[in-house]
Amino acid sequence: MNSVHGELITIGDELLSGRVVNSNAAHIARHLILAGFELRWATVVGDREEDITAALIRAMQRAAFVLATGGLGPTEDDRTSAAVASTLGRALRRDPQSWDILDMHLKKANATMTPGVAKMADLPEGAQRIDFSRPRAGYAILDLERPLFFLPGIPEEMADMLRDFVLPTLRDRFPGQKVIHSRVLRIFGLRESEIGARLSDFHQLYPDLRVGYLPHFPENRLTLTVQASGREVADTILNQAALTVGQRLGELHIYGEGEDTLEGVVGRLLLEKDETLALAESCTGGLIAHLITNLAGSSAYFDRGMVTYSDAAKVTHLHVPAETIEQYGSVSAEAAEAMVRGLRKETDAGLALAITGIAGPGGGTMEKPVGTVFLALLHRRGLRVERFQFRGTRLEIKTVAAYTALDWIRRAMIDDSFFS
Amino acid sequence: MNSVHGELITIGDELLSGRVVNSNAAHIARHLILAGFELRWATVVGDREEDITAALIRAMQRAAFVLATGGLGPTEDDRTSAAVASTLGRALRRDPQSWDILDMHLKKANATMTPGVAKMADLPEGAQRIDFSRPRAGYAILDLERPLFFLPGIPEEMADMLRDFVLPTLRDRFPGQKVIHSRVLRIFGLRESEIGARLSDFHQLYPDLRVGYLPHFPENRLTLTVQASGREVADTILNQAALTVGQRLGELHIYGEGEDTLEGVVGRLLLEKDETLALAESCTGGLIAHLITNLAGSSAYFDRGMVTYSDAAKVTHLHVPAETIEQYGSVSAEAAEAMVRGLRKETDAGLALAITGIAGPGGGTMEKPVGTVFLALLHRRGLRVERFQFRGTRLEIKTVAAYTALDWIRRAMIDDSFFS
Repeated sequence: MNSVHGELITIGDELLSGRVVNSNAAHIARHLILAGFELRWATVVGDREEDITAALIRAMQRAAFVLATGGLGPTEDDRTSAAVASTLGRALRRDPQSWDILDMHLKKANATMTPGVAKMADLPEGAQRIDFSRPRAGYAILDLERPLFFLPGIPEEMADMLRDFVLPTLRDRFPGQKVIHSRVLRIFGLRESEIGARLSDFHQLYPDLRVGYLPHFPENRLTLTVQASGREVADTILNQAALTVGQRLGELHIYGEGEDTLEGVVGRLLLEKDETLALAESCTGGLIAHLITNLAGSSAYFDRGMVTYSDAAKVTHLHVPAETIEQYGSVSAEAAEAMVRGLRKETDAGLALAITGIAGPGGGTMEKPVGTVFLALLHRRGLRVERFQFRGTRLEIKTVAAYTALDWIRRAMIDDSFFS
Repeated sequence: MNSVHGELITIGDELLSGRVVNSNAAHIARHLILAGFELRWATVVGDREEDITAALIRAMQRAAFVLATGGLGPTEDDRTSAAVASTLGRALRRDPQSWDILDMHLKKANATMTPGVAKMADLPEGAQRIDFSRPRAGYAILDLERPLFFLPGIPEEMADMLRDFVLPTLRDRFPGQKVIHSRVLRIFGLRESEIGARLSDFHQLYPDLRVGYLPHFPENRLTLTVQASGREVADTILNQAALTVGQRLGELHIYGEGEDTLEGVVGRLLLEKDETLALAESCTGGLIAHLITNLAGSSAYFDRGMVTYSDAAKVTHLHVPAETIEQYGSVSAEAAEAMVRGLRKETDAGLALAITGIAGPGGGTMEKPVGTVFLALLHRRGLRVERFQFRGTRLEIKTVAAYTALDWIRRAMIDDSFFS
């Protein structure tokens, strides 16, 4: 499909001992493909210098570019730079800029330079540091026919450098790649098999388009991919296809695209509608509040959350009548409604949401098995209370319950019939 | 460290496109190590026959045994057996037993033989089928100096064959292997570079021991690995080494071992000491409550949490005097203390913890930059309030702040001098 074949070398004993699953490799592969490059070989080596060297030599023989991750840190077992230097027959030289960045960082943290950290400033001759704003290891060697990239093994740092430096550099170096254009639709509330069934004739409707299903608990992601020489042609096809998906699955099931998150969409809508939110969480134990407050600026619309785990807390803070709990149980539609009405009394927030349920693994009964969850949402437009039955581990039930709550808030704000 | 070094070749386009994370590799590595064998090289190739062949040739040159997974199925892109045959210069021969098993299986399912399925009965000469009871692909070639194993890519099938056939066969073939024993120490509150510096002479003290550093934000994991003929010898060395690590890093920095989590250790201690916990969270936004309630049975010791994001919520629910907020700001030692004292009034919980800070990226000032966090912990033994300065993204600051809070609760329960 593509003539530019790269090789990935992931470095680290932890990858060969099975302590860590090599998720960096999958991330890199996915992003290279989207940028029009193909990963043809992937090699994993431990921290032995000779093995890193052997892998590098081999990769430089057969691949058009080489990307390596790991082994750039401050400890004894970080030997990537030494291996690179000996492979290329270049000296390790202290890079003044790297030194300054590390030194400044240490001073800010009131720490002193150690030989280990100092080592991170020693780069093979001709290497070009990637990140100049932070003390992140990572460099490229671009004065060779085949460019070499050495990135940290820490996933966030690797991902940033891949996106901001490696991919643009590869595009410069190998221009004219037929770029693969794609759109990711984010879906909540439909199973993968259900989505598949509703789109079963999709490849007949759009023969040039590739559809990828990516379950990402508790949501699903649908990737539409098309190869085209220009963005406009690609966009026309992708837009049409996304429309069809919306018709087939129901627009409300698609909560966003690309890097959207459900909590991000909710936050954007709350801001747009000038609404504020208060939460009363029992079974989700603070997870909804945590997701909401992961967003910068969430204090503009998030008022407060109460994690009323004990019955006493439900009575004290949410004015749930003790009799309600006694008669119906703290996991009931009645308790959820009492929680949300009590919460409403305490705050001026426009939207009040309460959730109570059994996350398990204990506490289930015949009538209310593990995974039983009640949601209540109160707004000046109305009140909605509903029972759900989820499945999975404790964390899975917490997670799907929290997403369902976020999805309710989203729908309440865009669906006029939500409360009717 | 070990004299028997194996190579793993995982085969499949899906591994190089990032559609699938290579979890088979981690599984195989873990089980080989526990059985005394070391995986020294791991190679990933796609479905191209020439790439499989190249990887095989290379592996047979350097490894004492080769294990490959994937490419044994019925479809066009399953080319492992063809590659094996051509690499070894052996013919593909129909294996009657494999044919019978496949045929029987198809008949049971009322299906007929297809050329694809028939291909699965064609094994390289000298190959020995692994599973005789089910229609699972997978064979070994044991008439060579270096044994070769070809397993299916389907995780369950691979795992069964690894356990029931590959490991016993390797033990037969390479008797007297020293088994590798390891211990993982979980550390919070020290940087990786700091740990490295304090243990810089460790390899001199324990020359037979291998130390692995595994940063796992916001904690660090230290793996001690030793090769020994018996568990007792290994344990003696590991225990001694763990003691030394404790002395060097400070026992209190090591919060657990193996699969321990900080919230799990905190939960265990709360149960043991018969304590209950209430939380008032501002900057962590519910994350501490979420971590605590991820554990089954946490309702026994977790009373409630308040996510008092707005000042109004701090005043209403935690009785923080409006003047305190006005005079010192809601991110201040005074506000943290007022929050924890107010929380204490609302609940009978033995431990009350309050946290307030600036998670960023906005909201920082010269005096209180992003990452400024105040913690307050109140217990009948005393009150402790402290200021912290964290760094990172919003989520990183939330996370390290939440871990610091959990670590305070842990220390408060095991360190007599915590409140003094």
